[in-house]
Amino acid sequence: MVDLGTSWDTEESQKMITHQNKHIIADGWVKRVALTPPVLSDNTADADRLVQGLKKGLGTDKVTIDLRLLKKLPFLLRQWNYCAGCVVLKDRGGWKVVGLFEWDQPEQPLGLAVDLGTSRVVVRLVSLVSGAVLGEHAFDNPQIAIGPDILARVHFSEAAGGLEKLHRLIIDGLNQNIASLSRSCGADPESIYLVSLAGNTTMTHLFMGLDSRWIIREPYIPVTNRPGMLRASDLGMAINPCGRIYLHPNIGSYFGGDLMAGILYSGMHTREETAILVDVGTNAEVVLGNKNWLIACAGAAGPALEGGVTRMGMMAGPGVIDKVVIHPREDVFDLHTMGDAKPKGICGSGLIDLAAQLFLSGMLDIRGKFNPKACGARLINTDGIPNLVIVPADQSATGQDLFVSQADIDSLIRSKAAMYTILETITASVGMLPGELSTFFVAGTFGSFIDPASAISIGMLPDLSLDAFNVLGNSSLEGAAQLLTCPTNLDEIDHIRDRITYLELNVNQEFMNRFSAAKFLPHTDPNLFPSVIFNNSNK
Amino acid sequence: MVDLGTSWDTEESQKMITHQNKHIIADGWVKRVALTPPVLSDNTADADRLVQGLKKGLGTDKVTIDLRLLKKLPFLLRQWNYCAGCVVLKDRGGWKVVGLFEWDQPEQPLGLAVDLGTSRVVVRLVSLVSGAVLGEHAFDNPQIAIGPDILARVHFSEAAGGLEKLHRLIIDGLNQNIASLSRSCGADPESIYLVSLAGNTTMTHLFMGLDSRWIIREPYIPVTNRPGMLRASDLGMAINPCGRIYLHPNIGSYFGGDLMAGILYSGMHTREETAILVDVGTNAEVVLGNKNWLIACAGAAGPALEGGVTRMGMMAGPGVIDKVVIHPREDVFDLHTMGDAKPKGICGSGLIDLAAQLFLSGMLDIRGKFNPKACGARLINTDGIPNLVIVPADQSATGQDLFVSQADIDSLIRSKAAMYTILETITASVGMLPGELSTFFVAGTFGSFIDPASAISIGMLPDLSLDAFNVLGNSSLEGAAQLLTCPTNLDEIDHIRDRITYLELNVNQEFMNRFSAAKFLPHTDPNLFPSVIFNNSNK
Repeated sequence: MVDLGTSWDTEESQKMITHQNKHIIADGWVKRVALTPPVLSDNTADADRLVQGLKKGLGTDKVTIDLRLLKKLPFLLRQWNYCAGCVVLKDRGGWKVVGLFEWDQPEQPLGLAVDLGTSRVVVRLVSLVSGAVLGEHAFDNPQIAIGPDILARVHFSEAAGGLEKLHRLIIDGLNQNIASLSRSCGADPESIYLVSLAGNTTMTHLFMGLDSRWIIREPYIPVTNRPGMLRASDLGMAINPCGRIYLHPNIGSYFGGDLMAGILYSGMHTREETAILVDVGTNAEVVLGNKNWLIACAGAAGPALEGGVTRMGMMAGPGVIDKVVIHPREDVFDLHTMGDAKPKGICGSGLIDLAAQLFLSGMLDIRGKFNPKACGARLINTDGIPNLVIVPADQSATGQDLFVSQADIDSLIRSKAAMYTILETITASVGMLPGELSTFFVAGTFGSFIDPASAISIGMLPDLSLDAFNVLGNSSLEGAAQLLTCPTNLDEIDHIRDRITYLELNVNQEFMNRFSAAKFLPHTDPNLFPSVIFNNSNK
Repeated sequence: MVDLGTSWDTEESQKMITHQNKHIIADGWVKRVALTPPVLSDNTADADRLVQGLKKGLGTDKVTIDLRLLKKLPFLLRQWNYCAGCVVLKDRGGWKVVGLFEWDQPEQPLGLAVDLGTSRVVVRLVSLVSGAVLGEHAFDNPQIAIGPDILARVHFSEAAGGLEKLHRLIIDGLNQNIASLSRSCGADPESIYLVSLAGNTTMTHLFMGLDSRWIIREPYIPVTNRPGMLRASDLGMAINPCGRIYLHPNIGSYFGGDLMAGILYSGMHTREETAILVDVGTNAEVVLGNKNWLIACAGAAGPALEGGVTRMGMMAGPGVIDKVVIHPREDVFDLHTMGDAKPKGICGSGLIDLAAQLFLSGMLDIRGKFNPKACGARLINTDGIPNLVIVPADQSATGQDLFVSQADIDSLIRSKAAMYTILETITASVGMLPGELSTFFVAGTFGSFIDPASAISIGMLPDLSLDAFNVLGNSSLEGAAQLLTCPTNLDEIDHIRDRITYLELNVNQEFMNRFSAAKFLPHTDPNLFPSVIFNNSNK
């Protein structure tokens, strides 16, 4: 039996994450200048004097000053005796001074990291001077009111006024949450000078008010791959009027800025050794590579992995089963629910656990079918479909039996097979096998709930040592936050963007053969999953 | 007697000016792209596809697209089958696409050159595609309602709301005149994508809404020397919403963008041979140099040169005397007035002519005092001050005698002496004498009315061959217009700006000695003006 107490929250993995999130604030977005006040023999203009003062730290005099700031500059410099703190942001071409503040005053310029998810949005407030995190806030993407998924929203955006409405919803939602987060941290949104936003391609487009209709139609064309650094005021963001917003670039319609930020955060693009990064979800996005090359691909894995198919499946929340251990001899299902509430459903990671445990206990066979003998009285037949009771009515929050059907399991198996096939295809493209990887980054919030041992047991993830798995958590937010610590991250992102090759997944015969082979538990080729076979035979 | 019919309007000098005004439209601000439409195997985003298409012509992919344009981009590219004309503007850091148009359509993107003078403003509309001039329009600077000169306006700007009012006056005045000029050319202000504006440092500051109080006070500090390329909409300019405005840089408070544009237009910064460029006026601004070095200085010459002191002095206009020939034997003053109207006053260039003719005819002596014998009945004494009647009452438009007083002449002589001293000082700084120059560019509108022969006769300009003088006309406007023809002008301007050394004119003993020596007609050292002595002795 596999050990369920895997090391996702151990001190060691935490340390690694902290280490990856470099806080090089000394070379950050804030510079201090102490200028010599003008005299007759040196009557350089105030702006040019400031630029000269910044030149040493920035290594260039290609520095412009926001017009709004220019209007205040002569007063502020004289008031502060020509000593000031400057917020300097790097544009594609050069530097821009967007903020001036009195160096010794407690009020410091802030940055905001945003993970713009289709369902959830997370904002994190950070000091641009010290790198300290002031606070974090998560909220539902207000566009959910229009439609739960990307497709529904894009279709809505095509109607008259639709795009503007979607755009306003997310901008207003962000502004409200920025205001409340700032308030709760005792800060002023006017102190925010840089927003670093990472989201999938469509969410980023809707945020910018760009038409997304061509993203979802062949040949799947975004309006832009590199939105870059925009004026926050042009987008209606209620932060400092001179503030800028950096939008993490995408690779294409199905590989967005959230993934790009995840790569940055993982550091895989700086490592000698080849690693893989996987964001598991309805869409599986995968990057393989090292400091010399990067290959990316994205493919549909189906909604089962996110708990979106089964009748009892649901999003994470109180009473949702997220961990399952089965003691087959005693016919005991040891279930863990969020908030330790009475069970009312199961989330995607719980379903993976469940399937793994059912397989390891013999209740599911190698084809993923219920084994009536092993299942015993739990297996009931409703309208000809076998259902396995997971929680009897008297123990559930709903007062009804909670069960999974054979169809639910079939759907999960298709999803896990798609996932594994994508991993096989991308590794094969460089002549590797998934099992040869030594580092496996699990990106995204959903992925961080998956127990890799369970995922291996059902053949969804390759049979690597558990040490190989490195769960990044909300890697989109972390990557966005990392940008706030140091401008060199911009170059790193460009570097990643320039080197990445996008592998178009052709669903051809070879892909289908791999997919068919992966539709068994754990796989038709048991040699690919020696640990699973070992566990099974050791029972 | 010197020949008054100097060659300012000959075909040859015209040719030279046209030659200087390079129209390198092939490498202009407008590029045509013909892109391959996207397919599954090449699903680059629209914006990135456009940038790739522009890369060849621009030599870089550091190109961003204005957000407003980005919103329309996918529709326009598909409508035009991925062929488009692009207006691409260069910022300090990189290129920006600010306009998209259908290549084969007659409506073309336009540029606007502006000479922003303290008194007059001139706007010129130019095709950014062909370089053709569509039309030109001049109007009084509306800030005159606040005050006639820089000082009055800066003082006004310091009161509450003063700066904003001055800013609005010039912006509104420009917008009205842009609208009427466009209308008269059958064009739409929305077609204007680039404004190139050259003005003195204070006018440029007030145009931008920047505080100018430190410009007029020791140590004379502008807010900015290099305003660069700004969004026209940020300044309230009613042109294309994506349009940009380039503000020609200044060297300091007293050497503005108008002069910088003049240097560009003269081409002196590209010549092997050392030349001088002089903008004659109340302030004399001078640049000396060649392709290797440039020295600039500015000094007060007094208002006499612009007709601002004498009782009969006035700005150019109908009835104003602008040319004078004296036939001393017949006691005939052969006067030319603007519009051939009855004389009512004299402008600065007329006064220089008059003084030269009075000196050459012996009516003024070497000290600049009226010679009663030669002046005869024209010299009358009013309240102890000698006055010379130029136009008797029965011939004047006012019905009164038009005369110049000894005080008027004294004032002119101080001004011309200051002018010559400035020229002597700047040439001496590189070990030259003013008489050693072989090319003398006369910049600015006022200068173009001065007869260099007359100016030499009174010792205001050095005694060079008349061929050496090259009258540039409104060199500020021409330089501003030149920028509209080719982006490389931006680099040229930066190059000029970087190489120029500003020579602070210290009014020390040496300066005062030179000034005293220059207060004679033409000079205490007659060897400096051999042609004048020759003319005088030949009479």
